Amino acid sequence: MNNFGRLFRINIYGESHGQEVGILIDGCPAGLVLEEADFEKDLLRRKSGAKGTTPRLEQDKPVIKSGVFNGKTTGAPMLIVFENTNVRSKDYEAIKDTPRPGHADFTALKKFGGFNDYRGGGHFSGRLTLGLVTAGVVAKKLIHPVTVTAKLIEAGGDTDIQRAVDKAVEMKDSIGGIIECTALDVPPGLGEPFFDSAESVMSHMMFSIPAIKGIEFGAGFKAARMTGSEHNDLIIDINGKTETNHAGGINGGITNGNPLVFRVVVKPTSSISLPQDTVNMKTGKRVNLVIEGRHDVCIALRVPVVVENAAAIVLADLMLLEQKIPRVVE
Amino acid sequence: MNNFGRLFRINIYGESHGQEVGILIDGCPAGLVLEEADFEKDLLRRKSGAKGTTPRLEQDKPVIKSGVFNGKTTGAPMLIVFENTNVRSKDYEAIKDTPRPGHADFTALKKFGGFNDYRGGGHFSGRLTLGLVTAGVVAKKLIHPVTVTAKLIEAGGDTDIQRAVDKAVEMKDSIGGIIECTALDVPPGLGEPFFDSAESVMSHMMFSIPAIKGIEFGAGFKAARMTGSEHNDLIIDINGKTETNHAGGINGGITNGNPLVFRVVVKPTSSISLPQDTVNMKTGKRVNLVIEGRHDVCIALRVPVVVENAAAIVLADLMLLEQKIPRVVE
Amino acid sequence: MNNFGRLFRINIYGESHGQEVGILIDGCPAGLVLEEADFEKDLLRRKSGAKGTTPRLEQDKPVIKSGVFNGKTTGAPMLIVFENTNVRSKDYEAIKDTPRPGHADFTALKKFGGFNDYRGGGHFSGRLTLGLVTAGVVAKKLIHPVTVTAKLIEAGGDTDIQRAVDKAVEMKDSIGGIIECTALDVPPGLGEPFFDSAESVMSHMMFSIPAIKGIEFGAGFKAARMTGSEHNDLIIDINGKTETNHAGGINGGITNGNPLVFRVVVKPTSSISLPQDTVNMKTGKRVNLVIEGRHDVCIALRVPVVVENAAAIVLADLMLLEQKIPRVVE
Amino acid sequence: MNNFGRLFRINIYGESHGQEVGILIDGCPAGLVLEEADFEKDLLRRKSGAKGTTPRLEQDKPVIKSGVFNGKTTGAPMLIVFENTNVRSKDYEAIKDTPRPGHADFTALKKFGGFNDYRGGGHFSGRLTLGLVTAGVVAKKLIHPVTVTAKLIEAGGDTDIQRAVDKAVEMKDSIGGIIECTALDVPPGLGEPFFDSAESVMSHMMFSIPAIKGIEFGAGFKAARMTGSEHNDLIIDINGKTETNHAGGINGGITNGNPLVFRVVVKPTSSISLPQDTVNMKTGKRVNLVIEGRHDVCIALRVPVVVENAAAIVLADLMLLEQKIPRVVE
Repeated sequence: MNNFGRLFRINIYGESHGQEVGILIDGCPAGLVLEEADFEKDLLRRKSGAKGTTPRLEQDKPVIKSGVFNGKTTGAPMLIVFENTNVRSKDYEAIKDTPRPGHADFTALKKFGGFNDYRGGGHFSGRLTLGLVTAGVVAKKLIHPVTVTAKLIEAGGDTDIQRAVDKAVEMKDSIGGIIECTALDVPPGLGEPFFDSAESVMSHMMFSIPAIKGIEFGAGFKAARMTGSEHNDLIIDINGKTETNHAGGINGGITNGNPLVFRVVVKPTSSISLPQDTVNMKTGKRVNLVIEGRHDVCIALRVPVVVENAAAIVLADLMLLEQKIPRVVE
Repeated sequence: MNNFGRLFRINIYGESHGQEVGILIDGCPAGLVLEEADFEKDLLRRKSGAKGTTPRLEQDKPVIKSGVFNGKTTGAPMLIVFENTNVRSKDYEAIKDTPRPGHADFTALKKFGGFNDYRGGGHFSGRLTLGLVTAGVVAKKLIHPVTVTAKLIEAGGDTDIQRAVDKAVEMKDSIGGIIECTALDVPPGLGEPFFDSAESVMSHMMFSIPAIKGIEFGAGFKAARMTGSEHNDLIIDINGKTETNHAGGINGGITNGNPLVFRVVVKPTSSISLPQDTVNMKTGKRVNLVIEGRHDVCIALRVPVVVENAAAIVLADLMLLEQKIPRVVE
Repeated sequence: MNNFGRLFRINIYGESHGQEVGILIDGCPAGLVLEEADFEKDLLRRKSGAKGTTPRLEQDKPVIKSGVFNGKTTGAPMLIVFENTNVRSKDYEAIKDTPRPGHADFTALKKFGGFNDYRGGGHFSGRLTLGLVTAGVVAKKLIHPVTVTAKLIEAGGDTDIQRAVDKAVEMKDSIGGIIECTALDVPPGLGEPFFDSAESVMSHMMFSIPAIKGIEFGAGFKAARMTGSEHNDLIIDINGKTETNHAGGINGGITNGNPLVFRVVVKPTSSISLPQDTVNMKTGKRVNLVIEGRHDVCIALRVPVVVENAAAIVLADLMLLEQKIPRVVE
Repeated sequence: MNNFGRLFRINIYGESHGQEVGILIDGCPAGLVLEEADFEKDLLRRKSGAKGTTPRLEQDKPVIKSGVFNGKTTGAPMLIVFENTNVRSKDYEAIKDTPRPGHADFTALKKFGGFNDYRGGGHFSGRLTLGLVTAGVVAKKLIHPVTVTAKLIEAGGDTDIQRAVDKAVEMKDSIGGIIECTALDVPPGLGEPFFDSAESVMSHMMFSIPAIKGIEFGAGFKAARMTGSEHNDLIIDINGKTETNHAGGINGGITNGNPLVFRVVVKPTSSISLPQDTVNMKTGKRVNLVIEGRHDVCIALRVPVVVENAAAIVLADLMLLEQKIPRVVE
């Protein structure tokens, strides 16, 4: 079930230490100007290398294999590929029988009967989000003039994010964070009452991003402590503009034309340099595991562009469903 | 898009003040013992009438119209219907042109061009959740011995829920709350890495329930303030049992056999007795609206059974996908 | 999997001798004028009673239960119901263990473990096509000015259809036939290269109609005996009009603006008055079965309106996908 | 909508003269032994080069890019790629404005607004069937011991196929043919009454294969001339074995355990060496077109393996839906 979307549909594939990762985009309208250079800026935002991120440096060079002709989308499926070049598989052999705490090692073992590619997380790797970022670049072009922006607003409980990272590096531990995403100029009428509410499809997508463990729209969990008279957003004009935006731009599952606002929580990176207890699945014995390899101290630093672009994918699909984007663009 | 599920599939229909509401369940295995009395207990939990809930009292009597023969499911689609009997439509004529703050009135107007049935929220009404509860009863039977339980753990910011309701009634205002849902004995291996993670499909469903504005799994938003060494759940046996359960029973989008735990936030009921400002869509003038009719002061009181049963629907679908439930049960 | 369609989506339910049969239509644009009387003409065409058809006379009165308000579609799901009134279940008890040749009795037994409602074919009954006819009436309104017409062009190998029926009645046997369906003013561009070619989705739908065992587009099976120079349709204007129409209005899976033409074959009615051999599934003994009850000598007489309306459903979905029908019509 | 299948799901992509064509297979059970050499035999059957087929000789070398690890499927998506090496695009520039009769040139122009890759048919090319053959090889392994076989039983109206081809080569024209496909040991119970009958999903797939214009199951169109007593297949044992097989192994849309038999018609190749009339879309003038390039005189010679493997894909999906194939195979 590695696909998402009803009309703008994406399929993700690949493994961290296989030959490549990539994305197949189906249902993209024809006529959209697109070239490989368009992906650069957002891929750079996702890239590791800064303090707090893994020193694994892939080229992350996207190659469009199909669906683009003479610089424009053709309406046929687009395959966009990232070759894996900087692979050091031997780092991961140790984990084959000793699932790492917080990782998908154990669940993959159970689901796929031990046949999964366990190297570097395999198909579960955060590297797969390259495809989301890429498809999101296409989506952003489609949804124009709707804009989406996501940023890390808190890491390790601290709004000074550099300080939080420094502290975690020092502790040889990892930290999580909260990302806020805002979409502006969203047309009203996107989403369905049942079961494809705007929140439903957005959250469905967000929980596909590794490490996301919660989402809230508008006032979110704070709404549990508000009264109706505080929470209700008073309507102030015939375009549905509201005085406040506690609903996060969605009423009854449908966008209301106000900014669409949501926050997601990124759990602390599961891979840490500290030793941890786990169980050897073959011997049944408890073992103390030290995870070698390259880790992100604060993966949340790299996730905003993933959230932002994934949100754009959702909006592209919803806008196509409501015929807010034509089948052929020019 | 009023359907949900890949194998255990439900379609919801009806309007609050139309002839009926109901649910069409497709893909239910044959051979399941089922009669109308099976729905009683959960429907009663959803029922209004207690302090803090609307005095509108519907009979809420489910009628199985198809798919059951000689007391067992046949494998053909089941239509289960609730006639609307206690309808007072005149209460709602006033809102036709003046969308109520916090409601779907404005978004429905925009999405459906003004053709929607606006009486009592129409298709957006909380009454539609009758279908979810009903389908959930079927799902609970299917997923046995997996169990699901949801309860209201906080209302209006208070864990003493009766006190919170009393206070809100006094203020003529409404309050929200937080519901925690736990599923036990969930087999490992449910869910997909992309895009149908267990969190993705569960959240997709939860945001179909009116008034839900946030969801978090396991430690959820608290994870943003934890370190990896705190958050990682250490594995203590070959069944994947973990010492803690910060992951809420899901790693890499796939269930790990530990209790599946999530919390959702229910916003305060939008309908309140206090006057509120809005805009008349025809005249463009600001008006002060007093919402007549029957309201729930704390709709969150009635939502736990909806959350619980909706979660069971999701689990039934995931378990069928993993062949943990046969096509014919006996 | 009792649903069809990507945007204009239908779900069929019910059993021949249960409480009712019906159809749930989801994704119909809002604003379409619709009342129960609109279904009369096409339901009458499907009705039995003429020579060669079963004397079972149901009222066939459609009741719209949801999705229509003030005489127009609301955009919410429409449930349309036909109560079963003229049910004589005792006729069918005999078949419980002795599957009728040519019927779904044996396959239903195998698929549903013996839990299926076997009375009158249960969910497999031709009575279920009431829902298709009904949804097709809605679809025909949506696709206007595109028109669809289907007629029986041959029965029992004879183009004089009355003569064919008379002969079959006399023989106490049943006959099949060939139905031709033509859609005019179909816009070019409907359908997809892979896998939803216009032929794919049309045939998918047609083989849902009981008794259909073949379909061909344009020249169809005759194409196997033509040369390319004979078969190719020469293009004669910039609208793509062709001199001949051997392609049946579809090239590369996509409509070309010429009439969409296909033929389906209806097998002879399986229920015949003559005795037939079968096997008692419990005893394993061969038995000679005489099927009591009411039969159609030539069910093909009643199928054209089903084919025609089912084709309209397919076109409505394809036209919505290409944005040839708006989300709100007026 | 370039995807097919509910559980065993395939996505086809690529263009005839682009960088590559391929297939993405999602939902394949883990643990299946698979290597690139497994594809050789069937790819060879599809290959051109024999008399009556195009002299274009591609390497047709499949490369598995993901989803296989240590010689077995992992349960993650499999991307299988065929690089295009022998591309001569200049042959096709002429057709840009003058759509070839019988081809998808005109419909692609209309659907994709002129942005489609028109070289060699682009995404509509028969070359895309490489993906179907490849996915079918995987499917055949999964459905074992069910077997599928397809063969050309008639070409140009002649059962002596070599003679038919010789004659067409001499005439510089093209011919079509009829392919019969038989699946043995198919378990009973596959398919659904509505709308995913075994015939529905099989025909859906078959009409995705370029040049297929008709399909019939069992007696097919001949059933229109049979009586019920002739056509009904008498059941002779408790396994549902029938004396005859006019139903082609399917009753009520569901497989009955007898051989599944269907025939498809392949229209004559649209590309012929003879001059043909068409219209220049820019000038509106009628022009006489001679199609240069490499043609198959009888494409039907190469289609049996495509039909056979495409049928296996359908059976794999149906068997997974009925839990006749486990999620992890060994």
